[in-house]
This record gives sequence, structure tokens and C-alpha cells, in this order.
Amino acid sequence: MLGEPIQVLVDTVQKLERRNAARSLRKILASTRPEDIAEVFRFLGETQRKRIFDHIDDVEIRALVLSELDTDVLPSMLEQMTDGEIVPLLEEMSSDDTVDVLAAVADERRDALLNKMSREDMDEAHDLLRYDPETAGGLMVPDYFALERSTTCAEAILRLQDDSADLEMAFYVYVVNENGHLVGVVTLRQLVISPPNTALSDIMQPDIVRVATGDDQEQVAGLVARYNLLALPVVDDANRLVGIVTVDDVIDVIRQEATEDMLKMAGAGQVSFGLDARELGKAARSRMPWLLATLVGGIGASFIIHSFEEQMLKVALLAAFIPVIIGMAGNVGTQSLTIVTRGLALGHIDVTQTARVAVRELAIGMIGGLIYGVLLGVVAVIFGHNDPGVSATGGALAFGLSVSISLCGAMIIAAVVGSVVPMMFQRLSIDPAVATGPFVTTAVDILGVLFYFGVAVFLLGI
Amino acid sequence: MLGEPIQVLVDTVQKLERRNAARSLRKILASTRPEDIAEVFRFLGETQRKRIFDHIDDVEIRALVLSELDTDVLPSMLEQMTDGEIVPLLEEMSSDDTVDVLAAVADERRDALLNKMSREDMDEAHDLLRYDPETAGGLMVPDYFALERSTTCAEAILRLQDDSADLEMAFYVYVVNENGHLVGVVTLRQLVISPPNTALSDIMQPDIVRVATGDDQEQVAGLVARYNLLALPVVDDANRLVGIVTVDDVIDVIRQEATEDMLKMAGAGQVSFGLDARELGKAARSRMPWLLATLVGGIGASFIIHSFEEQMLKVALLAAFIPVIIGMAGNVGTQSLTIVTRGLALGHIDVTQTARVAVRELAIGMIGGLIYGVLLGVVAVIFGHNDPGVSATGGALAFGLSVSISLCGAMIIAAVVGSVVPMMFQRLSIDPAVATGPFVTTAVDILGVLFYFGVAVFLLGI
Repeated sequence: MLGEPIQVLVDTVQKLERRNAARSLRKILASTRPEDIAEVFRFLGETQRKRIFDHIDDVEIRALVLSELDTDVLPSMLEQMTDGEIVPLLEEMSSDDTVDVLAAVADERRDALLNKMSREDMDEAHDLLRYDPETAGGLMVPDYFALERSTTCAEAILRLQDDSADLEMAFYVYVVNENGHLVGVVTLRQLVISPPNTALSDIMQPDIVRVATGDDQEQVAGLVARYNLLALPVVDDANRLVGIVTVDDVIDVIRQEATEDMLKMAGAGQVSFGLDARELGKAARSRMPWLLATLVGGIGASFIIHSFEEQMLKVALLAAFIPVIIGMAGNVGTQSLTIVTRGLALGHIDVTQTARVAVRELAIGMIGGLIYGVLLGVVAVIFGHNDPGVSATGGALAFGLSVSISLCGAMIIAAVVGSVVPMMFQRLSIDPAVATGPFVTTAVDILGVLFYFGVAVFLLGI
Repeated sequence: MLGEPIQVLVDTVQKLERRNAARSLRKILASTRPEDIAEVFRFLGETQRKRIFDHIDDVEIRALVLSELDTDVLPSMLEQMTDGEIVPLLEEMSSDDTVDVLAAVADERRDALLNKMSREDMDEAHDLLRYDPETAGGLMVPDYFALERSTTCAEAILRLQDDSADLEMAFYVYVVNENGHLVGVVTLRQLVISPPNTALSDIMQPDIVRVATGDDQEQVAGLVARYNLLALPVVDDANRLVGIVTVDDVIDVIRQEATEDMLKMAGAGQVSFGLDARELGKAARSRMPWLLATLVGGIGASFIIHSFEEQMLKVALLAAFIPVIIGMAGNVGTQSLTIVTRGLALGHIDVTQTARVAVRELAIGMIGGLIYGVLLGVVAVIFGHNDPGVSATGGALAFGLSVSISLCGAMIIAAVVGSVVPMMFQRLSIDPAVATGPFVTTAVDILGVLFYFGVAVFLLGI
């Protein structure tokens, strides 16, 4: 239902556009959901998108398509549109979408666009632009439905009928006191099923979950998820209601934050699939820091191995087990750090539990280390059996034992490093997802190699 | 707002419980949101949880706490409860939660519990238990609000007032024809703001997004996210409305699927932090397959290196650059596979775009490979400058060149493998998140080492 029809739609729209079949194209676009048109645009070229967009007649649908466009697609689309084309769409959108679109253009053009908007829409957008896009203020819409405590249910329903135009997502009625302070909430359903002359203060839920404008979007998402809310009220420093964050925007935040965390852990920039030179350069640059850190760590490991060259000339087989030992240790480190980073992001653990988490990961690392240490030790004995270097020094058994101990030790080190480092970064208020990947891998590589040669020198007497 | 008070609450509750301050404990639990109590339980020991749970008096709150418990916590809680304690709570919950709780006990006990429930609740739970928990059928509640086309708005509001008890999340009125087929939807707001004698068929939206009971939960989540829905109707094979999936459950699915994908990519089992032997054993076992695959791949790499032992006895410095080359290649592979896997999960790309994606990743891998290849080549020349083995064979420049080419080549190979393998798995209907991690790492290790020695043998003439 999801994947298939979009691909069909993409093919159809492309074919009609290439054939200049304007009438058919208009017809198919008019009967397609705006969200699907936005999805189709992801698969089209830059100029093709604009040509097809121009075949959408209805200004409301044009506005919806523009507001649903992906952040990868939006800027190039706006570059191809004149101010005169954009402004009516900005005025048509809900104000949080207006702000998102305005955030995708350069500062100068933003000011020009704002100045061409109606006074009211401009002021609203201007207010919202003050907030960091990744906070409650940046996510909220000011189109909430708020009434005074003494309002009756019948009056509230009348007011709802008057205000209908701007309140796409009104499923709660917020109750405020004479100073605009948020004091309670009533669901639309309670409003409908209560006797008409009931005051809102009699049926409102006074203990209301709220956020401040500056609260981080991850926190907003966490509250909506935990308390199963459809909207979350946003208040200013004086506890005055200034907007609501709706659940549909929270869903986007949750998906986006999860994606970001995944990409950060792999140091992988953005999920984008453009093929032009600018796109490729951007992608290559975004992956650079992670790779540079790995390179520096890797050169560190090279240096250590280089300094054991004399030992390797005696037992060349030592080199053969370097990749498997640091590879296994790297995996263990990644496993620990993924679990700890995700646990921190979901709020399942906090930094006060560092010791507990480290002990746990150490224990799991040790279980794995013992099992795989024995396995790899056996392989090392087989490899070392007829090896002249091994025979001339400690013998195959000692060689196997040293590989065994090294793997086990490296895995334990990796588990501890992989669990403690993200906790440490969290405590220093550095995002653990972005910082730990290269740090852990590099530390594990260097410590693993050092441990391996240390054990070998000791056990083989080289 | 999120993290802090929970930790305070945990400390307070634990202190009161230890002091046997039953009255204070009851008081504090009665004034805490059920979702927060469930969150507190995550930080308590098994038996302590149960002792504190017993201090919650209200059966509704007990039911809510139980239904909000994490899947890590729920089974041990249920083990400590008698059937007589559980059944009233099951009857109190919404039916999708009842089913989730029942899914956490062994088959025999499930049947016993079902038999002790009221006829109606038992039948409802029995119906839902037929569906795979990860499908629309497993997520849905049968408590939707559906009316016939000719119903007027006034009648609909009356019906809503009668039915109020079971309809926690009714924000849409579904419209069905005489056969129970879903034909449209009306929002609660439209109902309130339309003239009382309007028929639902006059204001309903007929083009309604729906899913079938067997549709995967990821698809359900994708539709709710794309179309900004609060609930999604679920129909059976005959297009008869059988339930709705609400947005709060979809949020849980999105968080859970993202977490699962992250953990699968790292082969890291579950996000859990228990410290007892059973928990540790479970965690170690869950990480086993990934590590075993890495071990097998690593032994393969060892075997290849072993077979170049003669060459390494001539140029021992060759060993020093193995970790950095396969480490860099491993990272590039992980970056490509993360982007492709996430792109597939979010529906941004599909398998028909394999060639395009592979070309893109190849290009990015090549950019990185050229830059870092030159950098590492310089380091290799410096290391090789006074190295007797290097001087006796091709010389420092040839050595640097071979390291350079090897890094660049390994990175290109890794980018292609990391992007093509998840696409391949997707085409074979194998979850790319679970399968690609070990596969890509192993393939990259082996191919990287082979390429490295191949180039060295050729350029150094060893």
C-alpha cells in the first residue's frame, strides 16, 4: 500500500510531464493527496519537480505540498519559485509550516518574503522565528483553542463553531484564568457529552502536562509519548499559554531524532540520495570527521604494531590475528555503546547509573570473551602448529593461550570503554551519539593492539 | 522536567517502602500519574516493585500502571501476581492492552486467565489474540465509533454521549454502509460545528486511508506519519471495519522500531539494564550471532594474512597498516549501510534504485579514499623510510603508494558492499537491519586484506 503506488505514481507523473500532457497531469495531481505528491517529488529531478508543481492549480494543495516537502527537496524548490509564487502559499499554511519554509531560505530573502506577507501572518511568523527550531517554541502553532474558566460547555461549542477555520487540530480546549495562565484542559469529547450549562472549571483536568518554549524537542516528544497526548500546551516564562505542539509534529520529531542518532553513531551525515556534484561533496564532507578520527586512531595502532616489528620478525603469525582481535573488540564496543546511547536517549538510564551499567557490560563482555577466546585460541593453536616462528619461541600452545587471553581481554576493555564513554559524554553535556563512535573505536583499536602484543611478548618470551 | 522528578520519585518511593510508611506511600502513589509510576518501576528491584504495586488502591490506576509497564518489567511482575489479582485489571484495561499483558505470560496461564474473565472481555481478547502483535490487527482496539450514513449530527452526538465509557480515543466518527463496510470518516469537530440535522454522508470524507488486519505495523506507522492521522481504521478482508489503531500506539511502534533497527545493526539484542544472572545470560546470548559472524570473518582474514607470511617476513611493516586499512573500510561500509538501511526503513528509497544508490556511495567512497589514501600514504613513506624490509624491496615510495592505493580501493569496495548488500537483502525480503551488519563487516575485512596484500605483492615485487 505504501511503496508500490508511489512508484506507480512517480512513473505516471513523469511520463505525462515528458509528453506535455498538461490536462491529464492536472487531473491526476488534483485527485492525489498532497502528502503523496510531496513523496513523489522526492524521486524527481529539481527542474522536473518545479514543472510538475506548476500544474497544481489549487493554492491550498500547493501550500500543503510545499509544507510537506522534505528538507532535502525544499530549498531547491524555493530557489526556483518567485516571491510572488511563494507568499500566497506561506499565508495559506499553518504558522509552524510557514516558519519551516522560511527557515529554508537565506536571511535576506526571508526578510523580503516576510515583508510581502499580510500584517497578521507576518507578525505571527516573526514571533515564531524567534525560537530555536529544535525547541517547543519552534514546533508549536499559536492556533490553540483557549477559554476562560467560567465559560459553559454550550458557549464553548459556539466559540468552536466560530473559530473553526484556523483550528485544524483542536481536540482539546485549554482553560485559562484572567491573566492568560494555563489552569486546565477539557477534551472535545467531554465538552460534547457534558450538560450544556456546565462550567469548564467543573469538568477540566487541572493537573496538566505542559512545556516551556525553550524546552528541547526530544523532551516534548518524550512527554507526548509517555502520557499518550494528542497535543501539548506550551507556556512562556510567566506560565501564559502561547501555543500547542500537536502529535503529528511530534511523530516527525521522533522519526527525525532516531534517524539522526543512527547516522551520528555511524558518522554518516544525512539520509539523502542526490547524485549531483554539490550533493556528493556535501555527503563526503559530512562523513569526514568520523573517518579522520578513525585514521588518526588507526595510525596510532600502526605505530604500536611498528614498534613490535622485531617481535613480528620472530613470530610473523602474530600479524594474522590482529584484525580478528580488534574487529571483535570493536563490535563489543559498538554493542555496548549502542545500548547505552539508546538507553540514555529513551530516558531508561541516567548518568548516576554509570557504575551499574559498566559492571553489567563488563560481565557480558567477559562471558563473550571467555567463549570466543577459547574458540579463537584453538584456531591459533592449529595455525601455530607447524609455524617455524611459533615453534622457535613459546610453541603452539603458548601462542594459542596468548591469542585467547588477548581476545578475552580486548573484549572486556571494549565493553567497559563502550559503556563508560557515552556516560561520560552525557555528563559533560556532549551528545553521546555524535561523540562516542570514533572515540570508542579508536580507543579500542589502540588498547586492543597494545594488550595483544603485551600478552604475546610475555607468554612467548619474545 | 522529564529526568529529574522521576529520580526524585524513585528515591522517595524506595525510602517510604523501606520504612514501611504505608500511609505516605499510598498517598504519594495516589497523586502520581500512572505513567510515572510505571517509569519508576523500571528502576526498582523485582520484589520491591510488587510490594509498592500492592500499595496502589484504585483498580483503574493499577490497570493503567500494569498496561504501561515496559516489556522488560511486565513478565516478572505478572509472575508475582495471582490470577485473582490480574483478572480484574485485565477487564479494566482497553482491549489492546489486555492482549499485550496476556502475551507476556505462558500459554497455559493465558488460557486460565482468559477463562476467569467475563464472557465479553474474554471474547474480545480472544479475537485480538489471533493477530500477530506486529500487525495492524495486533495493534488495533475494537472500540471505534461507527455510525450509518443516514445518521444526523445530532443523533451522532447523542450516541457519543451514550457510548462514552469505552471510547477513550474517539476523535473520528467512522461511517459505514448497511454491510458494515467503511465508506467515510467525520471528525468530531465537524460533527460539532455542522447543523444538527446534517446527515453524516453529507459531511464525511469518503477517500479514507485504511489498513488491513494483516498489514505490518511499520506500514501502519508510515501511513499515520505521512497523513498526520490521529487514528487509522482497520478493515478485514471484506472491507468491514473491525478496529482502529490510535496515534499513541503508533508513537510506541515508531520508537520501538527505531530502537530495534539500531540494536540490530549493532547486533546488540535489547536495551535492558538488569544485573541478575538470567538477564546477563540472555543479553550475552542475544549478542552471540553477530560476534560469531565477526569471528568467522576474522578467522578468514587471519587465514589470508597467514598465507602472506612469507611476504611479511620480508616486509614486517606490512602488518602495521592492516588495522587502519580495514578499520577505515569498515567505517565506510557502516556509513553506507546505515544510510541505505534507514532510507529503506523510512521509504525514501526502494530496491529499484540499487544502481543509483551504489553509484552515489561509490563516488563518496572514492572522494574519501583519495583524500585519506594520500594522507596515509605519506605516513607509510615516513614509517618505511628507514625500515630495512621496505628498503630491501620496493623502497619507501613504492610502499607508500601501495598503502595509498590499498586504502582507497578498500574504501571504494566497502562503500559498494555497504550499499548493495542491504538492497539485496531487502529484495530477498530479509530485514536489512539484522542481516547486513556482520555480513558487510566480514566481507569488507576479507576483501580489504586481500586487496592490500595483492597490491603490496605487485608493487613491492615480494
